[in-house]
Amino acid sequence: MEERLKQQMAFALEIDQEKNIFRQTHLSGHGRNENDAEHAWHMAIMAYLLREYSNEPVDIGKVMIMCLIHDIVEIDAGDTYAYDPEGLKTQKAREEAAKERIFSLLPADQKEELTALFDEFEAYETAESRFAHVMDNLQPLMLNNSNDGGDWREHQVNADQVRGRQSKNRLGSETLFRLTDAIIQEHIEKGNIKPGRAERK
Amino acid sequence: MEERLKQQMAFALEIDQEKNIFRQTHLSGHGRNENDAEHAWHMAIMAYLLREYSNEPVDIGKVMIMCLIHDIVEIDAGDTYAYDPEGLKTQKAREEAAKERIFSLLPADQKEELTALFDEFEAYETAESRFAHVMDNLQPLMLNNSNDGGDWREHQVNADQVRGRQSKNRLGSETLFRLTDAIIQEHIEKGNIKPGRAERK
Repeated sequence: MEERLKQQMAFALEIDQEKNIFRQTHLSGHGRNENDAEHAWHMAIMAYLLREYSNEPVDIGKVMIMCLIHDIVEIDAGDTYAYDPEGLKTQKAREEAAKERIFSLLPADQKEELTALFDEFEAYETAESRFAHVMDNLQPLMLNNSNDGGDWREHQVNADQVRGRQSKNRLGSETLFRLTDAIIQEHIEKGNIKPGRAERK
Repeated sequence: MEERLKQQMAFALEIDQEKNIFRQTHLSGHGRNENDAEHAWHMAIMAYLLREYSNEPVDIGKVMIMCLIHDIVEIDAGDTYAYDPEGLKTQKAREEAAKERIFSLLPADQKEELTALFDEFEAYETAESRFAHVMDNLQPLMLNNSNDGGDWREHQVNADQVRGRQSKNRLGSETLFRLTDAIIQEHIEKGNIKPGRAERK
């Protein structure tokens, strides 16, 4: 096998480990915890189906590959829960080291290509990355909503935290922001999300 | 929420169940059985990385969405093992019924779009579908190879069966066909794949 293909296959085998990185989100039907590969698969299909709601036109192929690879660094860095302040402090450094190691398995041009896609996603500055981020927020919110907000209750998350994360959905999709906002409001009213500043006034 | 978005979100939630459809393939590192969502995620990334080896130019966004949705029917129809002759007899009918039920959750235009993508994959007639099929074969072969051919040994698969399935890789990628053929040959020699007609001569 020629060297280039050997490197590509080494990377393809390495990322198999993403299936062992479990998240805080539970599958619908009060199922087990979801893993990163499943989450990425779900996000990519949702991006394709919901692309009409992007605020700006997007290259949907680019959105999909961004969704598919955005959590690969968690093979080394682990999953950092969106509402874990301690974990969030070190997340960037852990993920930078992982990115370097894992993408270096690829031929140089593809290392550069995937690193650029990963960085573009993180930077939140292009239409594609903003829409991919909406999926990264909407997909677990959809599952948690289907499970009566169990993940929020378990972690005693409050409305300010959830709104803080989900507010950026507006940058990618006004329509889907309204959807996520309505779901959040419902779960605040049901007591699944603890009150925030606005509710305590 | 308007009716169209409601239908799209109903479909998005429904396909969460694909994460509970387990395959015969095991994860690398002699891991657990893989599920359909993980398999599809892995295929889509591999398609993107290996697209240079397609015999014909492909629309890679189309290949990726084909990979991502190609097993959705198994939510109802279950996974049919590639070397299960009894299962293969009824597979088509089971999957047709599933396709109708599941894609009907979508708005009519998207039902039509996804059904067309699914049918195009199955028909094996376009460059995109032929290349997506190479991924459907190569991805589990890669994992099984990493596990010393354990899945072949478990099912006592013979060389004619494996070659029969993998021979069609040539239609999508000559280079990747040679790779899969070399892997198969190695496992025949190691005794992980039982001899076929050619070996018994």
